[in-house]
Amino acid sequence: MPGKYLDLLREKAPLIHNITNYVTVNDCANILIAVGGSPIMSDDAREVEEITSICSGLNINIGTLNERTIPSMLLAGARANALGHPVILDPVGAGASRLRTETAFRLLEKIKFSVIRGNVSEIKTLALGNGTTKGVDADVADAITDENLDEFISFAGAFSKKTGAVIAITGAIDLVSDGNRSFIIRNGHPMLAKITGSGCMLTAMTAAFIAANPNEILEATAAAVCAMGLCGELAFEKAEKLGVGNSSFRNLLIDEVFLLRGEALNRGAKYELR
Amino acid sequence: MPGKYLDLLREKAPLIHNITNYVTVNDCANILIAVGGSPIMSDDAREVEEITSICSGLNINIGTLNERTIPSMLLAGARANALGHPVILDPVGAGASRLRTETAFRLLEKIKFSVIRGNVSEIKTLALGNGTTKGVDADVADAITDENLDEFISFAGAFSKKTGAVIAITGAIDLVSDGNRSFIIRNGHPMLAKITGSGCMLTAMTAAFIAANPNEILEATAAAVCAMGLCGELAFEKAEKLGVGNSSFRNLLIDEVFLLRGEALNRGAKYELR
Amino acid sequence: MPGKYLDLLREKAPLIHNITNYVTVNDCANILIAVGGSPIMSDDAREVEEITSICSGLNINIGTLNERTIPSMLLAGARANALGHPVILDPVGAGASRLRTETAFRLLEKIKFSVIRGNVSEIKTLALGNGTTKGVDADVADAITDENLDEFISFAGAFSKKTGAVIAITGAIDLVSDGNRSFIIRNGHPMLAKITGSGCMLTAMTAAFIAANPNEILEATAAAVCAMGLCGELAFEKAEKLGVGNSSFRNLLIDEVFLLRGEALNRGAKYELR
Repeated sequence: MPGKYLDLLREKAPLIHNITNYVTVNDCANILIAVGGSPIMSDDAREVEEITSICSGLNINIGTLNERTIPSMLLAGARANALGHPVILDPVGAGASRLRTETAFRLLEKIKFSVIRGNVSEIKTLALGNGTTKGVDADVADAITDENLDEFISFAGAFSKKTGAVIAITGAIDLVSDGNRSFIIRNGHPMLAKITGSGCMLTAMTAAFIAANPNEILEATAAAVCAMGLCGELAFEKAEKLGVGNSSFRNLLIDEVFLLRGEALNRGAKYELR
Repeated sequence: MPGKYLDLLREKAPLIHNITNYVTVNDCANILIAVGGSPIMSDDAREVEEITSICSGLNINIGTLNERTIPSMLLAGARANALGHPVILDPVGAGASRLRTETAFRLLEKIKFSVIRGNVSEIKTLALGNGTTKGVDADVADAITDENLDEFISFAGAFSKKTGAVIAITGAIDLVSDGNRSFIIRNGHPMLAKITGSGCMLTAMTAAFIAANPNEILEATAAAVCAMGLCGELAFEKAEKLGVGNSSFRNLLIDEVFLLRGEALNRGAKYELR
Repeated sequence: MPGKYLDLLREKAPLIHNITNYVTVNDCANILIAVGGSPIMSDDAREVEEITSICSGLNINIGTLNERTIPSMLLAGARANALGHPVILDPVGAGASRLRTETAFRLLEKIKFSVIRGNVSEIKTLALGNGTTKGVDADVADAITDENLDEFISFAGAFSKKTGAVIAITGAIDLVSDGNRSFIIRNGHPMLAKITGSGCMLTAMTAAFIAANPNEILEATAAAVCAMGLCGELAFEKAEKLGVGNSSFRNLLIDEVFLLRGEALNRGAKYELR
């Protein structure tokens, strides 16, 4: 029943504070509006505490990390924690550089995250201290498959118990776990890997889902993952008919999120709960 | 007769210096080209004076403000003032944080603006020292309506006289005033609020209108506001036919600006002068 | 035979490190994916050496230059040189400010570039210490024409010999020279000048072409220039049929790159070798 989390999001229209990279920031803002939320981007240490205070959720994304924004992430995270706002982490490129890996660890140490969403390589880096990240994309050797699914469920569950955060590992098969229950989600389309920002946009969107549904973080996160995957499928159908490529697909994807309602999400979501 | 200001803009093709946020910067650049201008983005203190010197207008936008860019805004503004170039301020999120509010006040104190364009909440913050900003969106309670229009005309006029700038308050009903005369503009579409950057793009576009028409700042600003609203209407018609969402609407909007000519603007503009 | 360089690029899928401006960064990332590469954006001095080490090519673009990123460019460039990775320079706006011009000179002094790609005004600034840059666009007086083509071939060849880099001067007629041989390319469409980022995207794409074809830098660069021009032509055909403007054209352009294969590039490329 993921649809109800979307419908409540559209009703509440949560304002989401984003400290995020400059590559996909525009898409993150537009998808937040598309899904029914409201975005504000702010990364200066002198204002992030105030900004996050007027919001109901915080999205921290470490792509294009720099020394100016790290203190801002820590300040905003601490304030959001103090106010009880859900906070989500997207550890973009963790494993690709010490700066990113160490910053991710520092954020995990100082901030209580409601959700951590990344690809397999990024999550492995955070959970195991290693992982073979290929830049900002997951290493193929790391993919979740039907064969290793049980193993990954245990892995994600253990990392969730350790961090207290719902863990969302996304790829061809998506896994969302709180250590007790795991959603296995089979929505999505390979085309989502052919644009920049699928992951960043999903994280931003998840921030809105959990801000609107703070007492059902696991379910709301799974709903966001289903919604993104489903919209990827729908956008691909249209893209194929139109004969367009990845840039138009990006627009169609955000469009589908804009057009999506709870009922359609319920019909199109492909998940099982274990 | 707003069309003639657009036609002159296309003839003169003014180069506009933008110190703006990283969320909507790409859209601002593309809409500046679409309307017939030429954009340059530059925010380092060591070059902004030179860059603004080769331009004919300056656009200062305080979204994603940071300590590195504030001195750049002050330097560029002073130089543009010295050269007699029109300067426009977009006080994005003024009222949402002390940093933004105080920076806006500091800019108002140090720089002579030709135009200040914002939503009702932002302009109220600047004029009254308060205002209930909901992040970067206007508070609904703040909307200009037919009932409070006279009141807002007085308010905008007084703030214009105080600052010496043309004041453009945009929303469902737009108001452009120089203290003596006020344009009430009824172009636009609610869809413009469903994308990020409508306001930023309008401000950038207005910079080009006033740079090309420096002796008719009030009229040129009103023409820019009409143009944006009209293009929003036209883009929505196309978006509806195509069944697309907000991301495609954004492209269609910039496309309509690209396609707009003075004659069509004259036909479609809905304004009255008081 | 430019097609084979594209096909090899798609086979190798090189990871490209980009230190680039925040205006067109999203388009650069999407076009890198479209052409078959993989992008990573990173500009903090504490991580750029590591990041560039896991990549196979480096793209340095000086648009929206700031003091934080200049040391990053120097560090990444030195490391890429040490590892033998191709490095490309896009001197956006060289000539428009001392900061940009002097930074470009400093980069040329410290880093061995495989390719330098710019418009005529930017390349003249670097080669002659002057040039009449109109912001980030080339001065019309500077255009390569059939009349001055021989002169420009000598000019580009001399600058190539001086720097050791393949020189790509792009405009209505494109010129790619290594000092001994010059490709004259007549693909392209004026619409490419009506969007922001055509140049930045071409440079990013060229980085992927040369990273995949490091032993044929001249040919791979010419292939990239042909590909961008041809996709501009194809995108314009579609844009015209659809009656759209510059924002949709940008999407169609990246789409065409996504759809392009070697065979089509061979058929559509318009070049001569002198």
